[in-house]
Amino acid sequence: MKPASQKALEVRVPLSDKARLESLLKPGSRVRIYTKSGLSLEGLVLPRYELYKGKHITLKLDNGYNIGISLDNIERVESLEPRALKAEEHTGEIVPEAPKPRKGLPKTLIVGTGGTIASRVDYQTGGVKPELTSKELLEAIPELAELAEIEASVLFNILSENMEPEHWTVIAEKIARYISEDPKRGIVITHGTDTMAYTAAALSFALQNLPVPIALVGAQRSSDRPSSDAALNLIAAVLYSQSNIGEVAVVMHGETGDTYMLAHRGVRVRKMHSTRRDAFQSIESLPLAKIYPVHQKLVKLRDDARARSRLDEFEPKVRFERRVALLKYHPGFHADIIDYLVDRGIRGIVLEGTGMGHVAERVIPSISRAIESGVIVVMTTQCIFGTVNLNVYSTGRMLLQAGVVPAGDMLPETALVKLSWLLANYDDTKEVVELFKRNLVGEYEERRRVDLFPRWPHG
Amino acid sequence: MKPASQKALEVRVPLSDKARLESLLKPGSRVRIYTKSGLSLEGLVLPRYELYKGKHITLKLDNGYNIGISLDNIERVESLEPRALKAEEHTGEIVPEAPKPRKGLPKTLIVGTGGTIASRVDYQTGGVKPELTSKELLEAIPELAELAEIEASVLFNILSENMEPEHWTVIAEKIARYISEDPKRGIVITHGTDTMAYTAAALSFALQNLPVPIALVGAQRSSDRPSSDAALNLIAAVLYSQSNIGEVAVVMHGETGDTYMLAHRGVRVRKMHSTRRDAFQSIESLPLAKIYPVHQKLVKLRDDARARSRLDEFEPKVRFERRVALLKYHPGFHADIIDYLVDRGIRGIVLEGTGMGHVAERVIPSISRAIESGVIVVMTTQCIFGTVNLNVYSTGRMLLQAGVVPAGDMLPETALVKLSWLLANYDDTKEVVELFKRNLVGEYEERRRVDLFPRWPHG
Repeated sequence: MKPASQKALEVRVPLSDKARLESLLKPGSRVRIYTKSGLSLEGLVLPRYELYKGKHITLKLDNGYNIGISLDNIERVESLEPRALKAEEHTGEIVPEAPKPRKGLPKTLIVGTGGTIASRVDYQTGGVKPELTSKELLEAIPELAELAEIEASVLFNILSENMEPEHWTVIAEKIARYISEDPKRGIVITHGTDTMAYTAAALSFALQNLPVPIALVGAQRSSDRPSSDAALNLIAAVLYSQSNIGEVAVVMHGETGDTYMLAHRGVRVRKMHSTRRDAFQSIESLPLAKIYPVHQKLVKLRDDARARSRLDEFEPKVRFERRVALLKYHPGFHADIIDYLVDRGIRGIVLEGTGMGHVAERVIPSISRAIESGVIVVMTTQCIFGTVNLNVYSTGRMLLQAGVVPAGDMLPETALVKLSWLLANYDDTKEVVELFKRNLVGEYEERRRVDLFPRWPHG
Repeated sequence: MKPASQKALEVRVPLSDKARLESLLKPGSRVRIYTKSGLSLEGLVLPRYELYKGKHITLKLDNGYNIGISLDNIERVESLEPRALKAEEHTGEIVPEAPKPRKGLPKTLIVGTGGTIASRVDYQTGGVKPELTSKELLEAIPELAELAEIEASVLFNILSENMEPEHWTVIAEKIARYISEDPKRGIVITHGTDTMAYTAAALSFALQNLPVPIALVGAQRSSDRPSSDAALNLIAAVLYSQSNIGEVAVVMHGETGDTYMLAHRGVRVRKMHSTRRDAFQSIESLPLAKIYPVHQKLVKLRDDARARSRLDEFEPKVRFERRVALLKYHPGFHADIIDYLVDRGIRGIVLEGTGMGHVAERVIPSISRAIESGVIVVMTTQCIFGTVNLNVYSTGRMLLQAGVVPAGDMLPETALVKLSWLLANYDDTKEVVELFKRNLVGEYEERRRVDLFPRWPHG
């Protein structure tokens, strides 16, 4: 299947227009490059300082490989994004940010990817634009310098709705390099909140046996607003990055006040509200830790939180398969979407079924056909809470017979990311299914507690 | 676009096989009939007593019209369902169910459509099958006879994952007829829980200005299990059906204990857990009423609950458009699914975007093309809680410019049902969009309260 993004916009730039070319070749942009030697290459522009100085760029191709392209060899460039966002200094190179970093404090590296936490209000449009550098962010939060010796790098500066599986790979690769360079330095990734939970799940699978904690952190209000949650979230994220927990977590406000932040396990968290500061919540799962930023205190909530691993145990697997899809079932669902995706070469489909994991019986023939074609079809529930069980009702048993893989209580979004990761890193379908069913990083909640369903106000 | 269900299974039955034919022509089944006069008709078999006795059946066609077909004129039948469920006495005719209905009590009509509430455990497979008639159900709950003069009818006996927009039309038509026959008799509809919220939304739009309350009720445990919630839910539903609230509600357990049930406004409710008895919850919205079944008491929670209307104000509009789809956005989303649906003639698309209602910018060209082709594209949020706002970020403003209709805080599932209903009942696109934006039956929560976000346990 051709990924949807391969449909190019009509932005064709010949090499002669140098300025336009450079704006198209910003790190994080998706482009198709036609070379003078007759190749057509599509991928994500990687953050490389050389781009601005030197003579070539590096593309991350869909198959996960990087390829260097000499600028002299470029015939034409097509942008696969409607427009490139303003991006400054996305070199991926680490720079010390605090004016005089205090030696002796534990180190934390802040990696910027964009989002509201790195945004300012645009007073012309009233909207919010991601254009704050990590440096400016740190200048605005002087407390950080008291907590850690802060270093920073900027990978992207994008709104997180534009994050794609390719970006996950770039982030995971960079982080893996940063970790191998200094396996004691904690990592904080600033990220837009829209797809932060997807990225958290992606890094949880890609970077297992972590020698350091990784905190993803964002803000629901831009950093230049008085009501911004950016500062406290970032302080809590730095505190988490210095803990002894070797897991990827999303660190955000735990309640609307400023008393505590939560570190949510990356595979069990969801953005559950479009605007609240406490939008991120663990789903029927205890968060890893509660963090009190004012008292600079972190309280572990789970004794099964994994400890930091040794560097030699750390084995990153950073590729993701783009030919996967998440489909939500509904009455009147068009089963031919499944047929279409199968015909286009999809490799994995995650269904969000009803209740314990159902779809109308009339959809089962399309599912069977997909599975017979070698597609892995996984069932999750659109209830979000509770587990899939395909043994109770006749529909479920028919789905099992057809070969559907039940995802238990795994979140639909996590199931999509896990399937994408498994398909990119393991060749054998049987092994992919077997690994999908195995609990790798806590994506299945093994300590289900009845009291973790939220309490609903009724009056 | 051809609805997905038009792909027939290879179940072709010639008229000679009478028994097989009858099993295919069970009410609620979807079939394609080839007539001797050369027609090919596809639709839902309506519950008609005549089928079993007489010489014709009635099909509900996709355009909403009913058509009678003489059995003698049938050449061949194709089942569009993998298999017909066991269905008994689905006549839609009303029969008094209590052995000696107590005159003087208020009347309630219980309309059966199937689901767990009408199911037994199948001790051969360990699964659950819908096969209890309303009569058996009532015999199991003698308390009901003390509350109301109960009448009953059975429309379908299906698992609710098999409910389709056509079923909504049949249920709405039947209920409208029952109401016009006796505009004082409350209505209780027993229904599977999987898609009960979708049906509740559908009836909320189709049956406005209700002279009587309509309660949809189900069970999370089948009625023959000691732990079943069926009895208390049904008692609460009957109590609701006798209230002065002229709205469609879902009536289910409010908490896991047996103290109270809740009547949720049909357009603001979601099944939020795959198995819990208190799975149904109103989303950032107060339920209409709290019902204490043991004390036979109903406490109204909202003073904006609509009162019963006069019969002459009741104006049912029962049709639903099947050419609508709900698509959930995710990183790596295949935008070509939108192109495919547009090419197949889709009329409305509800997107479940991220955060305040976003998708990757690269998807916007496909959305623009859909809108230019006359498709109505609506934006909701996969956060479930909170509202869509397309004015804050650049992506949102681009979506607005493209002509996307923001759905505010309307639930994605409700937005799908509303769009389906509007497109079937109003010809003018402008009017459809205008009505979509207007709050018709409380689908937009006008009393948003910050304390209605659920409380999450954090340790």
